Amino acid sequence: MRPRSRLVVALDDVSLERALELANLIPEADALKINYPLVLRHGLESVRKLSKLNTVICDFKVADIDNTNRLIAEAAFEAGAKALIAHAFVGSDALGACVDVANRFDAFIIAVVEMSHPGAVEHIQPRTDELVRTALKAGVGGFVAPGTRPERIAHVRKLVGNKLIFAPGIGTQGGSARDAVDAGADFVIVGRSIYGAKDPVGTARKIISEVKS
Amino acid sequence: MRPRSRLVVALDDVSLERALELANLIPEADALKINYPLVLRHGLESVRKLSKLNTVICDFKVADIDNTNRLIAEAAFEAGAKALIAHAFVGSDALGACVDVANRFDAFIIAVVEMSHPGAVEHIQPRTDELVRTALKAGVGGFVAPGTRPERIAHVRKLVGNKLIFAPGIGTQGGSARDAVDAGADFVIVGRSIYGAKDPVGTARKIISEVKS
Repeated sequence: MRPRSRLVVALDDVSLERALELANLIPEADALKINYPLVLRHGLESVRKLSKLNTVICDFKVADIDNTNRLIAEAAFEAGAKALIAHAFVGSDALGACVDVANRFDAFIIAVVEMSHPGAVEHIQPRTDELVRTALKAGVGGFVAPGTRPERIAHVRKLVGNKLIFAPGIGTQGGSARDAVDAGADFVIVGRSIYGAKDPVGTARKIISEVKS
Repeated sequence: MRPRSRLVVALDDVSLERALELANLIPEADALKINYPLVLRHGLESVRKLSKLNTVICDFKVADIDNTNRLIAEAAFEAGAKALIAHAFVGSDALGACVDVANRFDAFIIAVVEMSHPGAVEHIQPRTDELVRTALKAGVGGFVAPGTRPERIAHVRKLVGNKLIFAPGIGTQGGSARDAVDAGADFVIVGRSIYGAKDPVGTARKIISEVKS
């Protein structure tokens, strides 16, 4: 997955109908990120339908034991997802189980080693370096680093070489797309600021031009 | 939720038809634990149907930011779940969002502060004490402690007072139900050893008598 527009649209809290509409309206997006709130309402059918329109990243924050992680990863990739977000803190075997499945599907795992919300500083941030090591050893293809804290993106960038970095927390949570990319993010993930906007397409284009300028 | 048989049957990797059959065959179980592999295949309908037969624990290992955690918790409890398993690792705001929703539904959150698989020793076990503090402050009703490591159940028991402790990893993963209860678990969670057995009902009864003796 190569950065073009650098924009990943998060469709975290919208109906499937609206998600499909937004996917059609914003074809410039490099990918669509979907999460359990959508999938719990509409099933894996939502992944199947959206993956016909654009690259789908299943942001399931997978964080179970190896056997369960494997089953969740199989479900996501069989439905058409090209990437799956999984937690590194569950350890190398559990994260490795996701990577094994991704490799079978020519897809990849994006590891969470930092997060964008305030509570991330309590237990995750103190272990970011160790989490990155676990994730690199497991063979993930990308990392999540917080758009709300560009200095942490820069820190993760130093640790992960040329692996892909995805930065959530842009917009509603307070992060700036430009700052995230300047700090080393390949992609900015934007949800509420786009799907909650009066003009989602205009907002998406504004973000794309902001990260390209 | 009071321990009676002390058995929670995990229906992690079975069809909904088989899950409903097992729920009917083992009414002595104190609860049924279900996970994403089932829900991704059959939707929240699986929670709705199973919760008519017994208490349902949604083992979603919730591990996202507060806003997304809230949406996931609402989906689980609206469908009839009485408890939801969530990670303490994501911090007090994210875990607290789950607790807030649980309180509205007269349900409760079970916090993960340890896990049963080998990789849990890498990042989770070193922080168990801090994770317990986060979870107690957030107001959770129960804890997950590994049936594969009774000494860790005893450790968690010391930290959590009279809160409920649920021990997974019994059977296939190597844990002993008796040892888990002796170490302080209120409930043993058993999945593959029951649903993979030739005689699931007999196996369940054997476990119940083992923890009662």
